[in-house]
Amino acid sequence: MREIFFPNSVAVIGVSAKPDNLGRNIVGNLVEYGFNGVVYAVGPSGGTIETRRIYRNVSDIPDHVDLAVIITPAKTVPGILEQCGQKGVRWAIIETAGFREYGEEGKALENQLVEIAEKYDMRFVGPNCIGVISMENGFCVPFPRLRKFVKHGVLSMVSQSGGVGMSVLNLMANEGVGLSKFISVGNMLNVDAEDVLEYLLEDDETDVVFLYLESIRDGRKMMQVAKQAKKPILAFKSNIGNLGNNIALSHTASLTSDDKVVNAAFQQAGIIRIHDATTLGNTMKTLELPPMKGKNLAIISRSGGHAVIAADSCELSGFRLAHLPDEFLREIEKHFRASVINLTNPLDLGDLFDLSVYAQIVEQTLQLDSVDGVVFLHTAISESENETSRQLLDFIIEMVKKHNKPVAYYISASAEEVNYLKQSYDFPIFTQVVETIRALETNHHYYEITQQLKKKEVIPQFPVEKARVKELIQTAKAEQRDLLLSEAIEVLDQYGIPTVKSKMACCVEEAQEIAEQIGYPVAIKIVADQISHKSDVGGVQLNLRTPGAVKDAFEDMMGRIQKAYPGEKLDGVLVQPMVSGGRELILGGRQDPQFGPVVMIGLGGIFVEIIEETAVRVAPISRETAEEMISSLRGSQILKGARGHLPLDVDSVVESLLRLSQLLTDFPEIEELDINPLRVLHEGEGCLSLDARMILE
Amino acid sequence: MREIFFPNSVAVIGVSAKPDNLGRNIVGNLVEYGFNGVVYAVGPSGGTIETRRIYRNVSDIPDHVDLAVIITPAKTVPGILEQCGQKGVRWAIIETAGFREYGEEGKALENQLVEIAEKYDMRFVGPNCIGVISMENGFCVPFPRLRKFVKHGVLSMVSQSGGVGMSVLNLMANEGVGLSKFISVGNMLNVDAEDVLEYLLEDDETDVVFLYLESIRDGRKMMQVAKQAKKPILAFKSNIGNLGNNIALSHTASLTSDDKVVNAAFQQAGIIRIHDATTLGNTMKTLELPPMKGKNLAIISRSGGHAVIAADSCELSGFRLAHLPDEFLREIEKHFRASVINLTNPLDLGDLFDLSVYAQIVEQTLQLDSVDGVVFLHTAISESENETSRQLLDFIIEMVKKHNKPVAYYISASAEEVNYLKQSYDFPIFTQVVETIRALETNHHYYEITQQLKKKEVIPQFPVEKARVKELIQTAKAEQRDLLLSEAIEVLDQYGIPTVKSKMACCVEEAQEIAEQIGYPVAIKIVADQISHKSDVGGVQLNLRTPGAVKDAFEDMMGRIQKAYPGEKLDGVLVQPMVSGGRELILGGRQDPQFGPVVMIGLGGIFVEIIEETAVRVAPISRETAEEMISSLRGSQILKGARGHLPLDVDSVVESLLRLSQLLTDFPEIEELDINPLRVLHEGEGCLSLDARMILE
Repeated sequence: MREIFFPNSVAVIGVSAKPDNLGRNIVGNLVEYGFNGVVYAVGPSGGTIETRRIYRNVSDIPDHVDLAVIITPAKTVPGILEQCGQKGVRWAIIETAGFREYGEEGKALENQLVEIAEKYDMRFVGPNCIGVISMENGFCVPFPRLRKFVKHGVLSMVSQSGGVGMSVLNLMANEGVGLSKFISVGNMLNVDAEDVLEYLLEDDETDVVFLYLESIRDGRKMMQVAKQAKKPILAFKSNIGNLGNNIALSHTASLTSDDKVVNAAFQQAGIIRIHDATTLGNTMKTLELPPMKGKNLAIISRSGGHAVIAADSCELSGFRLAHLPDEFLREIEKHFRASVINLTNPLDLGDLFDLSVYAQIVEQTLQLDSVDGVVFLHTAISESENETSRQLLDFIIEMVKKHNKPVAYYISASAEEVNYLKQSYDFPIFTQVVETIRALETNHHYYEITQQLKKKEVIPQFPVEKARVKELIQTAKAEQRDLLLSEAIEVLDQYGIPTVKSKMACCVEEAQEIAEQIGYPVAIKIVADQISHKSDVGGVQLNLRTPGAVKDAFEDMMGRIQKAYPGEKLDGVLVQPMVSGGRELILGGRQDPQFGPVVMIGLGGIFVEIIEETAVRVAPISRETAEEMISSLRGSQILKGARGHLPLDVDSVVESLLRLSQLLTDFPEIEELDINPLRVLHEGEGCLSLDARMILE
Repeated sequence: MREIFFPNSVAVIGVSAKPDNLGRNIVGNLVEYGFNGVVYAVGPSGGTIETRRIYRNVSDIPDHVDLAVIITPAKTVPGILEQCGQKGVRWAIIETAGFREYGEEGKALENQLVEIAEKYDMRFVGPNCIGVISMENGFCVPFPRLRKFVKHGVLSMVSQSGGVGMSVLNLMANEGVGLSKFISVGNMLNVDAEDVLEYLLEDDETDVVFLYLESIRDGRKMMQVAKQAKKPILAFKSNIGNLGNNIALSHTASLTSDDKVVNAAFQQAGIIRIHDATTLGNTMKTLELPPMKGKNLAIISRSGGHAVIAADSCELSGFRLAHLPDEFLREIEKHFRASVINLTNPLDLGDLFDLSVYAQIVEQTLQLDSVDGVVFLHTAISESENETSRQLLDFIIEMVKKHNKPVAYYISASAEEVNYLKQSYDFPIFTQVVETIRALETNHHYYEITQQLKKKEVIPQFPVEKARVKELIQTAKAEQRDLLLSEAIEVLDQYGIPTVKSKMACCVEEAQEIAEQIGYPVAIKIVADQISHKSDVGGVQLNLRTPGAVKDAFEDMMGRIQKAYPGEKLDGVLVQPMVSGGRELILGGRQDPQFGPVVMIGLGGIFVEIIEETAVRVAPISRETAEEMISSLRGSQILKGARGHLPLDVDSVVESLLRLSQLLTDFPEIEELDINPLRVLHEGEGCLSLDARMILE
């Protein structure tokens, strides 16, 4: 993959002397960026551009060529790639558009490209991409003519959209974030985003990776790569599409949209998800700072107003205002002209005009054990202060290195001065108070995630009856149906997920007999292949207290369903004891096309029905993750006994989630699964699956 | 108030020839901004600056002076203000710091200023402020030396912090938002933020007002002024302070933090609350556009990636992708080189390089009745397109005026070009896709609010027994206690808020007799002055089903409480029937120091206990507001019969809220009030207050 960024010799194919020729732009960019290799121009009409010969054909080039950049009409690209192959060119960047995005004809051209690349063992980026930039060696081949607008730095970007990629480069230029490598991957026929990500994570010159994604090819591979990364990955994933329009068979599937799974996967893999440009810019900057290892923040401000705003943000971001010791505050007080009554954190230094004193205060603050990070809010009062302000910034940068704690440096100054600082310093310059502290929150959050990911993840393996489950699934598949209620409950049993004792009854008498055995009150539920939404067809009757009630309910249910579904085979009913006490949860899972098995949990009732409050994770999960899923639910404190409620048996729910995770991982054939409700009883009493649905692929 | 912005003659007091003299900066600013009046410099050492005489005393000035700008040491300010008064100067801006923020001495100086101003009938801004700018007439008196960094426009700003004010001016300069007037109000001794707001709302040159507030003096006045405003008001209110640290006697008070009340008040008054700089900049810009009157958005993009991001945002912002008619799409298709398969909204025009065609498309789109607004996402591919891009922008501006619909114009281009556009065009230039659409959401939301506020608000007045309530409150106040449970329930009765039938019993026999009358099961609740948290002391016993149970509960309760509170007077118990069915809500209210009476509603159980999900509004409220409060609660669909639940009697809850609003408005003496729970029964069956607490001021 290194060859894409560091070729020694490049052929730009599609060059002509016309002023609006895109190939010509590419050659111009390579010159402008000071590319340290050889460039050959190729174009059918030949001639010269700027004293450089245009070869008519790549085969005319007298020397070896490492990489070809192709920007010729789509229908000519296969022929040109073939020529490259014959010439021994092993790498290509195909920027031409007009392939699969133009329909069948374009798709056919793509197939040719894939074949040719295979034949010659070539790798190529694109087609339909804007190109590649590598700042180290001046390799810059996007087809728009570019000045050196973004500075050289340590962030590398992979973008599935050329337009978005360019606008993020503009953002970086604007924010003073330096670039190492940029690649627009286009249609990803041969090189995809995950390949490049893997390379960049190993690249010594890249400290941070940003991904713009519209689709994810292999979510599990991406997670695996990201989990092992030693550097932060930021990702903007768009194409959320029709958030509410899930057409799903199970409750679980409608509660675990693809986008929720993306959120979960990113979180589990330590990928920082970005939702807007502001956050992107500020997050890029915050990750240039050392990690904020704790939650204790010191705020130093030259404006009282900014101090107030920062203190609000500190609280909203979950930070604490660090305790500043008395002797420290007394020391600072000496610098003031008048005595200040309430010197505290935030340190409002409005009265202080000597910027060198600020430097001392920053250093002393960073030395405090009670401080994990500093927000320095600087208001440059007039142009005449620019020089001393810059000295102060130099000093702060030094202190940050020395103490390895972050100082988020905010400045309110003229646009010219802010821009000068952003372009001249290898240090983040923030210009929005609230956003700065939010960014520091991400810095801290990322530190916590990395600490978490360093621990080895233990996925428990419970002894289960896998063979019997396989049998049940195969039988159902052979009969081209989903699992019956009774079978679904048996599957849970085999995987050690507690279920309420249930027995099948085919007639009234049998139902009454079972009810007698298990004790009244009972519930009866229809068991039939084609009826999965039982409640909708009156297929559930609860709280039956007498044999007569069982008879009435059974006959009524059968009659009604047979009328609604004439000809439908009804296998009978499941008779269950009524369980009371505790609280209802929903557990579930499904197979996600990108990320494989996922598990879900939600509080029952209004919480899932109306608020759709659920936690989703990619399976298999560890015990810690299962516990964290439950804690992350709004309202979950109720399970643990908040506000005078009796604590419930959360441990049994954790274990059920883990067993469910194992089941869905073992059997990708289970497309969707609901345990609804799972009733969790008081501490020590366990939990019980009262109903279950399993839909096969 | 006009004299603050448009004086004819100004004395700047505190000027010397020293290079770092702040008064000198002010004179310099007036020259730089081209102030159209006369400026006199005043300073004790006399001399000249830049050919201008420095008068030693304001009384030496030979002509009349409209306004004095004072920037001399704090202790000299009262004397100088006195001299100004004698000279007949009616207005002053006191920028000097070092008053109440420095303790008692400074506070005493402030008192002198207030007295002097009264004596001479003067008005003054400050002290401790950064000054005033009025772009129309070049009146610019902040003490830092300023270039003309922000352009002349229609936004006016009132700031309670000079530092924050300056940084917002920097933001406006950066975003190309033009300024009409700026005022930093400082300690607000004489002129406060509300006064200036009132003036600016009447000011013809101001189209939008921005307030930065750290405190609110008279919240009700502010609401009243804002409700009648014909122009948008944006407000950043900081100093939220210790969000979670409410120490409150009642449940309601802890659920209605001051900041929640600020949110409610701003919403009710149509004030747009801002929480960060990014949103501030984009909201300022979006309000320069015509109102987006509906939810149908058309997205026109030159980059496929941006189109995808915009479609996501459209959905997240609650907009609909406008339907584009077939003939319209076929017309557009003609402009493409190749046939495009899925031309739809978002219109991805990546293949189109003729910018004049974009102009036609924008015009045709704005003409569609199915389109309420457009987001135009422009990617300027290279510098050579700048000229045609600008022509396109000219055309779009014309079309926006012609069709009176918003086009949010986003551009990704070089920093130089973006800055040129922002500074040269009186039209908002956006540079962040997601943020642009969020801003358009605010534009639409503001339009809806203004439509709402145009309707006359009807506050219902129910016939109630005000006199009896007054009596109860006066009795309790005379005895220096809060209302007893039995009295609180009577107050609700008198205001027509349904309560469960309750009777006082002083002994076991009486309790049994009442229970017999009202029917078992019953609840008994302690009635005692000092015991307000009844449940905490075992003062509530529910579900008593027999005379024996009543006896046991009564004796047990009395014994336990007497032991816990020896010497406490226990008035007896309230006996109530148990009410079942329906759902529990909490209703409440309190007196807010800034905004007066507020009412609150929450769903019961976990919702208020754990999630603290409540709706708060400043009273008195209209029926529409009461209904909207209920609808705004997450999970409130359950009340209306969502997901197969029986619909509950929401109308009766609305009426109870309205009556509660009347009660709290009639009796500011009721400091805090809880109705917890209010049980709402099925439709047509009403609701019942089961318990109530009222705390007097």
